[in-house]
Amino acid sequence: MSAKKLGQQTVALAHPPSILCGANAVGHKEGEGPLGKCFDYVDGDDTFGQPTWERSECTAQKKALALALEKGGLTAQELDWLFAGDLLNQCVSSSFAAREQKRPFFGLYGACSTFGEGMVLAAMTLDGDFGERAGVVVSSHFCTAERQYRTPLEYGCQRTPSAQWTVTGAGAVILQREGTGPYLTHLTPGKIVDKGITDTNNMGAAMAPAAYDTLSAHFQDTGRGPDFYDLIVTGDLGELGGTLLCELFRRDGVDLSPHYTDCGKLIFDRERQDVHCGGSGCGCSAAVFTGYLLPGLRAGRWKNLLFCPTGALHSPTTAFQGESIPGICHAVALAAPEPASGKEPM
Amino acid sequence: MSAKKLGQQTVALAHPPSILCGANAVGHKEGEGPLGKCFDYVDGDDTFGQPTWERSECTAQKKALALALEKGGLTAQELDWLFAGDLLNQCVSSSFAAREQKRPFFGLYGACSTFGEGMVLAAMTLDGDFGERAGVVVSSHFCTAERQYRTPLEYGCQRTPSAQWTVTGAGAVILQREGTGPYLTHLTPGKIVDKGITDTNNMGAAMAPAAYDTLSAHFQDTGRGPDFYDLIVTGDLGELGGTLLCELFRRDGVDLSPHYTDCGKLIFDRERQDVHCGGSGCGCSAAVFTGYLLPGLRAGRWKNLLFCPTGALHSPTTAFQGESIPGICHAVALAAPEPASGKEPM
Repeated sequence: MSAKKLGQQTVALAHPPSILCGANAVGHKEGEGPLGKCFDYVDGDDTFGQPTWERSECTAQKKALALALEKGGLTAQELDWLFAGDLLNQCVSSSFAAREQKRPFFGLYGACSTFGEGMVLAAMTLDGDFGERAGVVVSSHFCTAERQYRTPLEYGCQRTPSAQWTVTGAGAVILQREGTGPYLTHLTPGKIVDKGITDTNNMGAAMAPAAYDTLSAHFQDTGRGPDFYDLIVTGDLGELGGTLLCELFRRDGVDLSPHYTDCGKLIFDRERQDVHCGGSGCGCSAAVFTGYLLPGLRAGRWKNLLFCPTGALHSPTTAFQGESIPGICHAVALAAPEPASGKEPM
Repeated sequence: MSAKKLGQQTVALAHPPSILCGANAVGHKEGEGPLGKCFDYVDGDDTFGQPTWERSECTAQKKALALALEKGGLTAQELDWLFAGDLLNQCVSSSFAAREQKRPFFGLYGACSTFGEGMVLAAMTLDGDFGERAGVVVSSHFCTAERQYRTPLEYGCQRTPSAQWTVTGAGAVILQREGTGPYLTHLTPGKIVDKGITDTNNMGAAMAPAAYDTLSAHFQDTGRGPDFYDLIVTGDLGELGGTLLCELFRRDGVDLSPHYTDCGKLIFDRERQDVHCGGSGCGCSAAVFTGYLLPGLRAGRWKNLLFCPTGALHSPTTAFQGESIPGICHAVALAAPEPASGKEPM
């Protein structure tokens, strides 16, 4: 076994890369949510000034990366690698956005877990000494996702109570080999887990077993328990999926709930915004991470954070064919810039 | 700049990983082509015994990986990481195939370049000391691709002369940190290049500028010229794209042609098999690599080989919206097991 591998599934980075900066660009509804003031750019009508929804999403992705580069005082040319992904068929938001960056490009597909997948791979390229800086950018858009995965927008289809609302937004982080934190210390890339859920309006239930699998592996490989973390945040399990995850751990005698929340629950106000079980989409965890979690780590609000984007890896075709929904979850352990000083997190 | 980075875009691996083994599973037409005898498994009717084409492709992918594991005397549990991708919406062939492997999984989307993208990332995880073994598996299927990208199969639509034929097949390689070669010595992941081609029946022309960009960067970063390589093989530029690539280099005063071929030209007999410009699809370069190039490297037929899978990153939606086709090409330099002895390649 290699020096950096812990157990079956986790990597302990020898020289933990830093998050130099992060940025996001979100839609109108996200701007009206509880985290509205945390976002770098809120679009007025979700078009991002473009004539098609696909171009709108692509523009959001370009905007998030441009804002991150600006915050870092960098040009795209200073990125060694760019990792990107989205939910659209053939990941076109990412490929089309990256035309302008002219950087070596890795297209990823991990559904709503893609931001985590990108952070894992970007961190490995830096810790492995393959470059100084890597960018990760992902996006989703309610209007592109809804018509691709569900029904035409004009249809006005009624949503089931377990449904989630795809976030319109993009998020980007720039990782740097040398830096002052927050640091990526451990990576636990996930396995695909499929417990036979076939309801595409209940993705929280489809993804919860994958989150349970990855978190369990992370705890086992690192010897850490949930108490080690000030906050454990899944990507977009939403209300129902988050409850199921806590229930799965409860059966093991582990109480996750004091430390646990979910990006899909944080981004919308479920009472006021009619989003049923909460937010979803690649942009959900990316916008919440860059707008809320990253600034909180910098401010010392949390010292140790476990960020766990989750994805449901089905397609409309597989759903029509009656197949179940494979889930995945990638976990990234982050440590705040200041070494732990023993005082309670704020 | 990090120690392993050469120039803007290339990585020189400090401890080059080996290809432990490779395998493939292809369709009937591929089995009747010039490389028919090179393939590990040829399916009789392209269904791979499944009731839907999507399941057929998924089964081909599982079969290729299972055969590779068998050749290497390994179980899936001995892989640290699995990298996989395909052409289908939401990459479902890969996600569904990987349900059985229960290994940490990275879903990739690089269209027909995905096998190269996977080899680049897998090699970095091993050289970076993040594990001992990584698997890369990709697939494509004529019947899933045709109906998704073009027209219903039953339509019998006439094909333009510049069109290519999506390969039915899957290929898998297992990379190992310690081994006896062939070695992956240099990686040049590609940038996205879009020269404005909008004809989705002329993907060779859309991808040729990306291949030119990556190969030029590789030559510049490494100081090697085309003469260094006994063989330079692009993924699936086909007849037209391959001619364009040679023409682009000719304008720089570089004659690529004595060393150059393309997997899309190798896999089918264009005169006899009615494939117009040749083969395409993720499975094209993967089947040709595992069936023909890898055994040739082992046998000493080539000492230095540059393998350059190419991809066209559009979707039917972007094509309908009048967008052009972004291309990408990832280059992997391979060295035969025996160190170069100065004698001419066979």
